[in-house]
Amino acid sequence: MKKKNKNVNAAILVIGNEILSGRTQDRNVSFISSWMNIQCGIRVKEVRIVPDIEKIIIKNVLDLSKQYNYVFTTGGIGPTHDDITSKAISKAFKVKYKFNNEAYKILESYYGKFNFNKPRQKMAKIPEGSNLILNPASAAPGFKIKNVFCLPGVPLILQSMLPNIKKFLIKGSVIYDKNIYLDTVESKIAKDLTKLQNNYKSKIEIGSYPFFKSGKVGVAIVLRSTNKKVISNCNSHLSRIVKKNKIKILNQ
Amino acid sequence: MKKKNKNVNAAILVIGNEILSGRTQDRNVSFISSWMNIQCGIRVKEVRIVPDIEKIIIKNVLDLSKQYNYVFTTGGIGPTHDDITSKAISKAFKVKYKFNNEAYKILESYYGKFNFNKPRQKMAKIPEGSNLILNPASAAPGFKIKNVFCLPGVPLILQSMLPNIKKFLIKGSVIYDKNIYLDTVESKIAKDLTKLQNNYKSKIEIGSYPFFKSGKVGVAIVLRSTNKKVISNCNSHLSRIVKKNKIKILNQ
Repeated sequence: MKKKNKNVNAAILVIGNEILSGRTQDRNVSFISSWMNIQCGIRVKEVRIVPDIEKIIIKNVLDLSKQYNYVFTTGGIGPTHDDITSKAISKAFKVKYKFNNEAYKILESYYGKFNFNKPRQKMAKIPEGSNLILNPASAAPGFKIKNVFCLPGVPLILQSMLPNIKKFLIKGSVIYDKNIYLDTVESKIAKDLTKLQNNYKSKIEIGSYPFFKSGKVGVAIVLRSTNKKVISNCNSHLSRIVKKNKIKILNQ
Repeated sequence: MKKKNKNVNAAILVIGNEILSGRTQDRNVSFISSWMNIQCGIRVKEVRIVPDIEKIIIKNVLDLSKQYNYVFTTGGIGPTHDDITSKAISKAFKVKYKFNNEAYKILESYYGKFNFNKPRQKMAKIPEGSNLILNPASAAPGFKIKNVFCLPGVPLILQSMLPNIKKFLIKGSVIYDKNIYLDTVESKIAKDLTKLQNNYKSKIEIGSYPFFKSGKVGVAIVLRSTNKKVISNCNSHLSRIVKKNKIKILNQ
């Protein structure tokens, strides 16, 4: 029986002036994308980075939520005035922005009654009807409402929380990949690669990426498919192309 | 005389399956954003990352081109089959995708007649009526059409080309920033920061970002404004808040 290729997709909405201004290098997009593919077979098809402005967050979250199976937001769920994601998402889905009892208890027990001040309490306010996403690193939970999952911006905290959203997700087909590093330039194999891609049509996605390392140039060929056998076949074809063109394969 | 705050904005469209899949960490967004602000006073207000799919590129480039003063695209202008930006942009603006004489000559002279093969020639095909963006690093030019600037994905090459687009850009007001690193947690100063932000309203943007370094936690406060005096005043206020709360300022 042929295995069905199950396409489950997602978008990431990065919320934060610090990413847009260039002050902070985003590290969540590549982590979430890889993790979602390997762990859940979910493909990230679009990313948007937007500022901490309520109406812009609302517009984008609704837009992406309609277009994709899932949306993962990062950033803006902390205790300070510039953390406005929870309120914005409440408005987007027209539900109350209010204290969640479970979140309140988690935070109160983590900080202790004496240290559970107003700003920390703010982190227990989320859209009504949300499910919590537990946070093993620093307690303050994220939340899920409809098909939107709201996560923090700090990479280590976000990474600790991803396993806790798995139970909410429908699994799709994992995309496998194979990277082949060649001692050549793109133009030398471009023609053969085009033919190869045309032969395989949509069964495989062939990417070609020049790289520069220790004063050397090279090309990384990436074969991506949900079918390992297709990758293996395509790799055999590629090997013949490489041999024909007298190109050396590099170890990386 | 009061200096007018000139708001010139832009969006970045990152084109590339390798960024979306998580294989490659994008490094162009933060570089372009910082560079545009410092060199040209242009503010990046939105970033989108999209796959190498023609109709998606067309939709997004038109969408962003309408909304912002400028659009900078990265990726997809190389010699291989997966480099489809130039053709997609031609279709987006309904102009011919054809050889540009100047680009052809630049590339022919760079590679030499004997080595100027078909895939390399492809890099001379751009939307009709575009201006070239010269590439001091590896010759293959980018191009400007209407308010859209198409740049390569390889960071070092892109960075070498940014000075060559300056002449096409209207300058805006630079946003200055001051970073203050505090030995505290966000919740300890959240209330005072909210007041401070409310006092200054839109004259300044105050960001608060927790950080973790060598086993220590801290908070980076970022003050951003087009007016250096406002930053200086706000910083004095912040210093009083910090002193009142007995928080140590860290050197970073």
